[in-house]
Amino acid sequence: MTSETDPRSVRSREAILNAARELLLESGPTAVTHVQVADRAGVGRATVYRHWPQAEPLLLEAMATVPMPFLDQPTTPTREWLRRELTAIARQLELDDVRAVSTTLANTALWDENMDARRAQFATILTDRLATALDDAQTRGELTLALASRNAAALTIGPLYYRSTIEHAPTDATLIDAAIAALGDWSADR
Amino acid sequence: MTSETDPRSVRSREAILNAARELLLESGPTAVTHVQVADRAGVGRATVYRHWPQAEPLLLEAMATVPMPFLDQPTTPTREWLRRELTAIARQLELDDVRAVSTTLANTALWDENMDARRAQFATILTDRLATALDDAQTRGELTLALASRNAAALTIGPLYYRSTIEHAPTDATLIDAAIAALGDWSADR
Repeated sequence: MTSETDPRSVRSREAILNAARELLLESGPTAVTHVQVADRAGVGRATVYRHWPQAEPLLLEAMATVPMPFLDQPTTPTREWLRRELTAIARQLELDDVRAVSTTLANTALWDENMDARRAQFATILTDRLATALDDAQTRGELTLALASRNAAALTIGPLYYRSTIEHAPTDATLIDAAIAALGDWSADR
Repeated sequence: MTSETDPRSVRSREAILNAARELLLESGPTAVTHVQVADRAGVGRATVYRHWPQAEPLLLEAMATVPMPFLDQPTTPTREWLRRELTAIARQLELDDVRAVSTTLANTALWDENMDARRAQFATILTDRLATALDDAQTRGELTLALASRNAAALTIGPLYYRSTIEHAPTDATLIDAAIAALGDWSADR
C-alpha cells in the first residue's frame, strides 16, 4: 500500500488542502504556511511537510480549488464595476505571495502540463468573464467596444500584471482609468 | 586556486559568455544551446556544462550584457515608430525562449537579489526610453498624454506580456493599436 492509497494519508491530504483553502479565502495567500495549515487541519507539521515539502505548490493546489473571485457577477454601471474589480486585482498583485504564485504559474506552465492546464483555466475564466460583461454592457448601450471583447483582459489586466511583476511597483488609479478608457467609447450619460 | 581565479577558467568563462551573446544577437535566444555555444567558443561541451549546468542562466547572463534593442532611437512619426517597436516586442514574446527568460526573471527576482537587479534594470530601461520618446512627441505636438509618461511602458507592453505569458496566445494588431490609443490624444494631422 503506497501513501497515495493509504486511507489515512488520503484523509490527511484532504484535510490539509481544505485547511489551505480556508486560510487562503479568510486571510489571503500569506496565511498558507506549514504551521498555520497544520494547526487548522489538526495534523502534525511533519505530515504537511511530507505531502508538500514547499508551501507554494500547496498554495497553487489550494488556489485551483478556489472559485476565482475576480470579475464575477458584474453590476452596472459597468465602468464603475470594472474600476473596482481592477483595483482589487491590482491590490492583490501587490502582495508578494500573489506575485509569487502568478509568476510561478506563468513560468512553470512552460514545462509542466498540469501547471499549464491551470494557467489556461485561470486565463480563460478572466477572459470569458470580462468579455461577457463588456458584450452585455455594449448591448445595453454603455459603451462601443474599440476591439473584440476577448482582448479586454489583456488590455486591462496586462498593465497591472506588468507593473507588479516586471516593474515591481504599485498600480495607481490613472493607469487603471487609462486601460478602461482604451476599451472603447464609454457613454457619458449612462 | 579556485576555478573562479584560475586564468584558464576565467578565459573559458568569458569565451562562453561572448559566444552566447553573439548567438543571441545573431539568431535569437533559441540559438543559445550548450552545443552551439561550445562550438562558437572553441571549448568542449563539458566546459560549458561545468560553468553553466543549465542553458537558461547562461542566456540570462548573456542577455544582461546585450544592449536592450527595444524602444531605442525613436523616429517620427512617433506613433508609427511605437507600433513597429511594440510589434517587434510582441513577436519576440511569442518565442518560447523569450517567454522562458522573461517569466524566469520575473519569478526568480522575488527571491534572488542579482535577478531582481536585472529585472529592475530591464524594466527601467524600457520605462525610461518610452517616457522620453513620448515626452518629446508631446513637445512636438504629436500627442497629448492622458497620463504620466512613466506609465506608458506598463500600459503598452503590459497587454503583450500578459497575452504571451498568461494567455499564451499571439498578439494581434488591434491589441497594439488600442494600447497606443490609450496613451492619449494623437494628433491626426501629424
